[in-house]
Amino acid sequence: MTRVAILGATGYTALELIKILLRNPEVEITALTSRQKDAPHVHAVHPSLHSRIDLNCEDLTPQQVAGRADFVFCALPHGASTAVIPELLAGGCRVIDLSADYRLSDPGVYEEWYGLVHTDPTRLGSTVYGLPELWADRIPQADLVANPGCYTSTSILGLAPLLCQNLIDATGICIDAKSGVSGAGRSPKMTTLYPECNESISAYGVGRHRHTPEIDQVLTDVSGQNVEVVFTPHLVPMDRGILCTMYTRPKTTVAEDDVLDAMREYYKGKPFIRVVDHLPATKDVAYSNFCDMTVRISRGFLIVLCCTDNLIKGAAGVAVQNFNLMAGFEETTGLLPV
Amino acid sequence: MTRVAILGATGYTALELIKILLRNPEVEITALTSRQKDAPHVHAVHPSLHSRIDLNCEDLTPQQVAGRADFVFCALPHGASTAVIPELLAGGCRVIDLSADYRLSDPGVYEEWYGLVHTDPTRLGSTVYGLPELWADRIPQADLVANPGCYTSTSILGLAPLLCQNLIDATGICIDAKSGVSGAGRSPKMTTLYPECNESISAYGVGRHRHTPEIDQVLTDVSGQNVEVVFTPHLVPMDRGILCTMYTRPKTTVAEDDVLDAMREYYKGKPFIRVVDHLPATKDVAYSNFCDMTVRISRGFLIVLCCTDNLIKGAAGVAVQNFNLMAGFEETTGLLPV
Amino acid sequence: MTRVAILGATGYTALELIKILLRNPEVEITALTSRQKDAPHVHAVHPSLHSRIDLNCEDLTPQQVAGRADFVFCALPHGASTAVIPELLAGGCRVIDLSADYRLSDPGVYEEWYGLVHTDPTRLGSTVYGLPELWADRIPQADLVANPGCYTSTSILGLAPLLCQNLIDATGICIDAKSGVSGAGRSPKMTTLYPECNESISAYGVGRHRHTPEIDQVLTDVSGQNVEVVFTPHLVPMDRGILCTMYTRPKTTVAEDDVLDAMREYYKGKPFIRVVDHLPATKDVAYSNFCDMTVRISRGFLIVLCCTDNLIKGAAGVAVQNFNLMAGFEETTGLLPV
Amino acid sequence: MTRVAILGATGYTALELIKILLRNPEVEITALTSRQKDAPHVHAVHPSLHSRIDLNCEDLTPQQVAGRADFVFCALPHGASTAVIPELLAGGCRVIDLSADYRLSDPGVYEEWYGLVHTDPTRLGSTVYGLPELWADRIPQADLVANPGCYTSTSILGLAPLLCQNLIDATGICIDAKSGVSGAGRSPKMTTLYPECNESISAYGVGRHRHTPEIDQVLTDVSGQNVEVVFTPHLVPMDRGILCTMYTRPKTTVAEDDVLDAMREYYKGKPFIRVVDHLPATKDVAYSNFCDMTVRISRGFLIVLCCTDNLIKGAAGVAVQNFNLMAGFEETTGLLPV
Repeated sequence: MTRVAILGATGYTALELIKILLRNPEVEITALTSRQKDAPHVHAVHPSLHSRIDLNCEDLTPQQVAGRADFVFCALPHGASTAVIPELLAGGCRVIDLSADYRLSDPGVYEEWYGLVHTDPTRLGSTVYGLPELWADRIPQADLVANPGCYTSTSILGLAPLLCQNLIDATGICIDAKSGVSGAGRSPKMTTLYPECNESISAYGVGRHRHTPEIDQVLTDVSGQNVEVVFTPHLVPMDRGILCTMYTRPKTTVAEDDVLDAMREYYKGKPFIRVVDHLPATKDVAYSNFCDMTVRISRGFLIVLCCTDNLIKGAAGVAVQNFNLMAGFEETTGLLPV
Repeated sequence: MTRVAILGATGYTALELIKILLRNPEVEITALTSRQKDAPHVHAVHPSLHSRIDLNCEDLTPQQVAGRADFVFCALPHGASTAVIPELLAGGCRVIDLSADYRLSDPGVYEEWYGLVHTDPTRLGSTVYGLPELWADRIPQADLVANPGCYTSTSILGLAPLLCQNLIDATGICIDAKSGVSGAGRSPKMTTLYPECNESISAYGVGRHRHTPEIDQVLTDVSGQNVEVVFTPHLVPMDRGILCTMYTRPKTTVAEDDVLDAMREYYKGKPFIRVVDHLPATKDVAYSNFCDMTVRISRGFLIVLCCTDNLIKGAAGVAVQNFNLMAGFEETTGLLPV
Repeated sequence: MTRVAILGATGYTALELIKILLRNPEVEITALTSRQKDAPHVHAVHPSLHSRIDLNCEDLTPQQVAGRADFVFCALPHGASTAVIPELLAGGCRVIDLSADYRLSDPGVYEEWYGLVHTDPTRLGSTVYGLPELWADRIPQADLVANPGCYTSTSILGLAPLLCQNLIDATGICIDAKSGVSGAGRSPKMTTLYPECNESISAYGVGRHRHTPEIDQVLTDVSGQNVEVVFTPHLVPMDRGILCTMYTRPKTTVAEDDVLDAMREYYKGKPFIRVVDHLPATKDVAYSNFCDMTVRISRGFLIVLCCTDNLIKGAAGVAVQNFNLMAGFEETTGLLPV
Repeated sequence: MTRVAILGATGYTALELIKILLRNPEVEITALTSRQKDAPHVHAVHPSLHSRIDLNCEDLTPQQVAGRADFVFCALPHGASTAVIPELLAGGCRVIDLSADYRLSDPGVYEEWYGLVHTDPTRLGSTVYGLPELWADRIPQADLVANPGCYTSTSILGLAPLLCQNLIDATGICIDAKSGVSGAGRSPKMTTLYPECNESISAYGVGRHRHTPEIDQVLTDVSGQNVEVVFTPHLVPMDRGILCTMYTRPKTTVAEDDVLDAMREYYKGKPFIRVVDHLPATKDVAYSNFCDMTVRISRGFLIVLCCTDNLIKGAAGVAVQNFNLMAGFEETTGLLPV
């Protein structure tokens, strides 16, 4: 039995992690943490888990967690992850970090975009970026995996085949991203109250969203070119789902079918990527670990459309995919069939 | 020009008050208050008002407000209203209070349901309850009007004709009420975050909602019978609207058409009441001051279905209706046509 | 390998059936039917199934279906089921019928509420009603099971423990039911267009909804009393979920805790029933086969609150629960964990 | 009293037209048409109009309409408008056509994008395009005005100031447009059923949407440059609202503030255009005739964000704005304050 802990158990991502992990009979969830002092039962925090798991959300130290778990999913805010992960690793845990803390390789870039001095900079360069479709070979042996951002995954998965196969320009890529509200987390904020978001769409953080340098970095790494994107996120009145509509410039005249073939070739054997002919909707991938994508060519632009469930393929699902690879389970365990 | 102030200007009700009052060319909004220390422009708080009104939301004393306004709409939380209304009245203002502070006539009942000792109990008995369809005669000369609760209005308007005409039993009435989320206000709370409310319906506060004694009291007053209701509110994933489905027992065998006729007779000449034959939807009254109602008879029950927009007929609209009567405007000014 | 066919494969219920059955490695879906002449691939009809199942939706005769399948889920409209089920049974299939055609035991009642003369009346009396929490013993050996209506299940599961334990009056029960829009099916209708349903709640078919006689009949059967309910369905702006708020009269003074205990005792060992202390939300059971329920006592009424996912526990989930019992699988196969 | 008819009275745009026109006491709505043979009362078609207007939706000939009305709002599908407008004009009516029939100046382009041979081609070149912010001088004396498409208006209003002031390249403009579902009309279609659209976002008609040539043409006309856009519409789960996020290339290095100033100068005195500093949300303009816009500069792109209510500023509101100019009313009559 593989023992697993989840830090930051009260959020939406943690709920999805629990549900997915409960499908694997060889996994035991042994610790759930939160800062709430009264250690509420996880049922009280997530009523949908009633009768399914009997644990409290405790305020545990990294040492206590390390005593109970072989693997730790760290679903804490950025900044909070670096405060506990070195101790978890020292305690022998293998960690999937769902925060942004270990995603960027350059501490200066981290400081610029997150406004924090990174307290564990030496690990930045060496941490594996947990996008299994790109780096399945690096993940199995890793002790620490940086789980990608939701916008990031969706953008990268759509663009990587085209950049790696040199089909599009590496700069001047406009990513128009649309996300459901769960991506903003479960902490009370006026901006994510129901009557604020419902019946409305708006952009936010244009040019300043923290997933921008992450997209640049990962696409640069994977393609060997200096990729630069313009990233414009929007908040959409729905619970979950991300759609990225990406405007790129093809290097040469190409046909849609040839591009789709190139994408299918690139993702051959990847169980969660579906290159489709139709225009995908976020509902097609909701509650699943699938990533659906297609392309359209119009007036000199190659438009990539790519969607995921931000809480699954964009967070908890890919985290379990990483965990499966690290722990020696089938990559699809708990994720397929759904 | 009638000068008007709105206290608690950052909430949803205040926004609707401002929009409605801007339609009356003889009204000037002269003060908006909030506790925010930086006195934000009302545009920053309500972007939909951009270019329409040029005022800051200031932290003003009752005396300052009284110096600027003839009428005050008090959209503060319960407890906060009693702290300022006596001074506003002393300063010569006439006040429409949208909180619950002056609705109940018995300070003991107030304390029981609101958990606060009422600090202005002598005014409780004498304050006019601002439901113009029932007490249009008392409102014009009032200096203080207690604006009804949203659930309360919707329930009362549907039941009053039947109780006053002795068509139904006064007890054993079950009010199954469904409300949009804006009724819960604009303060950040986890329970009203978009991903908590969306795609879900649930009851809350069953048997304990504070509008219960208010419904009992007003229906008892208007009908002369000792009315007692069971009130079950539900949160519905929509911005606005209240539907009350009310299960009553007819005193004698009646036909639907006769009941509808009795309702129409009761509300003759009331511009905002629409007794309809079809089953009304909250969308039919959204963004308007209308209250739509009908009845159905089934297996010994007389079912009343009544709906309003909780922010308009349930709050800001009826408040302006009261204001119009107090200030000598047409009752429908700013409210019809919409 | 158990071979399974689904008739009426283009609807929402069929999609859920397919997803659930794909989780059972010992089941093979061998036929999907629809009346569309071009036999579209199921991917084209349900894009979320892309890469998961490779079948067309064919226009097959009952004989053709019987040649391919051991079990048939019949998700056809009422009237259409009776046209094929006798032949399917004659062909050796065992059938779970998700239509209303075999639910009512009296052909006269069927004709009264559905406006059709029943063409297979002799089977009506003997068909097993497929609510496994009540009749698990009858289902395993059945060749034909009538899968319950979604409103019906939710109402019955909440009321049965109280009626069977003689805690409440058998008549005068008011069921105020709220359903997501998927319950209305996938055929284009103006009334279920997005802009018609969104941001609105309304009642429909008050006193005339076809699940009324079904609720009466099943509760009468199970409790041995002559049960009569008033049933008021409402359309709620959400995809899925049913909440029934049910106003009943307790026979004696009871405490909430005692009623909850009685419910828990009644459902002991039933894996999909969760008797909870809190007020359940439809979101707690969404995408699952759970049925969550609780009670509240207020002013002489015992209020039962019960919710399900209308497409799962209210349709496809309970259908697979029945199938599992009939085919000898674990009752929870494909349904837990989810 | 100005007599007005509305053709195609059962749709969403017609409902908004009626509501807006009812606010003008000098207008009388004298005819509403639909093809329904039973001539339903407009209440039955639009329950929100109950008690507000007493007319049936009749199946009238153009001659009958011309006998009753001075002005006609033609809210018919494309193709149907050209079938009646010549007769309406011959009958002395002045017409605001809300269909696409008279928007494009080239009959060949019309045929290419709409698949119909234009039956009134001689009027195409001479018809005034009804975007009053651009051509207020041409509208007052027109007998026929082609009311713009909703996507078109929103795109053009955001881009025109930049193109006309030569701030951006005229080609390579990517318009990522997001619309509420009401834009798809009120005819039953599977694709706009609530459970299809809700909780989902997707693109549709990429590169093929009929508003594309209209945007090109109008921006080319107004700017004197050969404008070419890539237009990608998306369906968003909300009733109403359009947000266009438009990726353009500035001709020179510019600052956001300077661009905003240039926009404000361009729209000086235009009552419905609000150039704002913040990122506008569709909710800010919902139920109003406002168009809110701003710009952001990021990595060599000038991003324009522009939003409207698709049914008001995108359809009925601008139609009444045109009507006001044609009939000699204040441009804002019925539209401000709202």
